Amino acid sequence: MYIIIIGCSRVGITVAQTLDSKGHNVVVIDRNRESFQKLGRAFSGITIVGNGFAPEVLQEAGAEKADTLVAVTDNDNTNIVAAQVAKKFFKIEKVFARIYDPSRAEIYKKLGIEVLSATTLIVDRLQEMIFARK
Amino acid sequence: MYIIIIGCSRVGITVAQTLDSKGHNVVVIDRNRESFQKLGRAFSGITIVGNGFAPEVLQEAGAEKADTLVAVTDNDNTNIVAAQVAKKFFKIEKVFARIYDPSRAEIYKKLGIEVLSATTLIVDRLQEMIFARK
Repeated sequence: MYIIIIGCSRVGITVAQTLDSKGHNVVVIDRNRESFQKLGRAFSGITIVGNGFAPEVLQEAGAEKADTLVAVTDNDNTNIVAAQVAKKFFKIEKVFARIYDPSRAEIYKKLGIEVLSATTLIVDRLQEMIFARK
Repeated sequence: MYIIIIGCSRVGITVAQTLDSKGHNVVVIDRNRESFQKLGRAFSGITIVGNGFAPEVLQEAGAEKADTLVAVTDNDNTNIVAAQVAKKFFKIEKVFARIYDPSRAEIYKKLGIEVLSATTLIVDRLQEMIFARK
């Protein structure tokens, strides 16, 4: 699988390392070169410094041949725009965006983007655990 | 169910509103009085201004009769200490703490605290979605 990850955040790093270790082709894009250090020495994927929502940066990242794009910067708008560019310009099949504000999730779903909200995931999991029988 | 929530964060608010609307007894503790405004007018639970890890604040919150405590401030150490106080001093049965740094999760589990990491939840969910068959 060829996967592009936008945002070398804690989530981005963990996904990048996991998929890289499983032998997938991983490209990580981030505006800040220093953030790539956290990927560690074992990481054998590609890193690109730039804005992940810029078509020329995505092209450099090999977006035409990518199967999956994951937008996990700390900015909801960056993630949403990057996801839309990936879907519309590059026809990437699976596109996911992290969002911090779950109240906007429905709008994004209508735009055809799979969104992931930490708040929603934590709240759902908490309720499962609170009401779990021993 | 009697539940104490420490941290009127986005997660705290959502859990508080959901459980309150289901008829549970909900107490929310936060250091900042203004944060309670986001609970909305429909919220019928109790709010307490204070440090959720302070035994006297937890006592005021009715910790002796609480079934569950959820520590979801934006500070890992606050969440962990509050969870430990809840478990050891007040013998609250179900105690959960949100943590931002999942590398410390194993240590906390050994202390008997159920931890929830947004990073871990998002990474797990992303991998499920990436490798899901259509």
